[in-house]
Amino acid sequence: MFASVADFSSEWHRLVAQKDLEALRQVLHENASIGAPPYWNRIEGRDLVHHLLGLVVATIDEFTYQREWERGHELALEFTGSVNGQELQGIDLITLDAELRLAKLDVLMRPVNAVIELRSVIAPQMAEFLVARSQANAASGA
Amino acid sequence: MFASVADFSSEWHRLVAQKDLEALRQVLHENASIGAPPYWNRIEGRDLVHHLLGLVVATIDEFTYQREWERGHELALEFTGSVNGQELQGIDLITLDAELRLAKLDVLMRPVNAVIELRSVIAPQMAEFLVARSQANAASGA
Repeated sequence: MFASVADFSSEWHRLVAQKDLEALRQVLHENASIGAPPYWNRIEGRDLVHHLLGLVVATIDEFTYQREWERGHELALEFTGSVNGQELQGIDLITLDAELRLAKLDVLMRPVNAVIELRSVIAPQMAEFLVARSQANAASGA
Repeated sequence: MFASVADFSSEWHRLVAQKDLEALRQVLHENASIGAPPYWNRIEGRDLVHHLLGLVVATIDEFTYQREWERGHELALEFTGSVNGQELQGIDLITLDAELRLAKLDVLMRPVNAVIELRSVIAPQMAEFLVARSQANAASGA
């Protein structure tokens, strides 16, 4: 997909900055998973990861990447931002697959109050998406 | 203090694994600060940082470092562990000073329930330490 980790990183920064959700979908592996701040269990599959990340990008204000580390196919990207006026610091730990798509993402954040605020905004929207999706699957006999 | 970042890293791993709190104090800058998972405001000064890290090391079970990144004087050390049976994933973001002592540490963890559990164990002990310290300062006229 990308020629180098630097190419992935450059596209990742562009698509997050521009909230380019279609491009975001393109860089996700079909079986991509996310370890989100509120939950221990991973959220799996491109559709769910894509939707969740779209909500995160829409909800965190002044999202700005800070320090960055790269080691082979493993990236660590620190960010800062705020949710409803509560400042936060976080990090994206990204594992790329052999074709340099995003295979695994862990998102760690502090402080806990900002994580709870973020969850309170996103969880209802994520639930709505999951209900609509399961109804669509039921209607199509999937 | 250390000849190289690798030397710091090696000593850091040793002292955490062995819970060597005296050695921990030695690697902390006098004005070291920590951005802890529960709070936005930083905790500042070698004594407070040392005491808090000692409590963290004593409270997280099966503390194990995982992926690691290094870039100049900035380290990112992923870890896993558990608190009262709740699994957690975290990362230490460490900034070293010119003499390769720990000047700044940010600790980010997920999931939120494990952070709350950790806070419920540590906050009362930290409060007790702070009260004793302020009484000692008052008694000495500091």
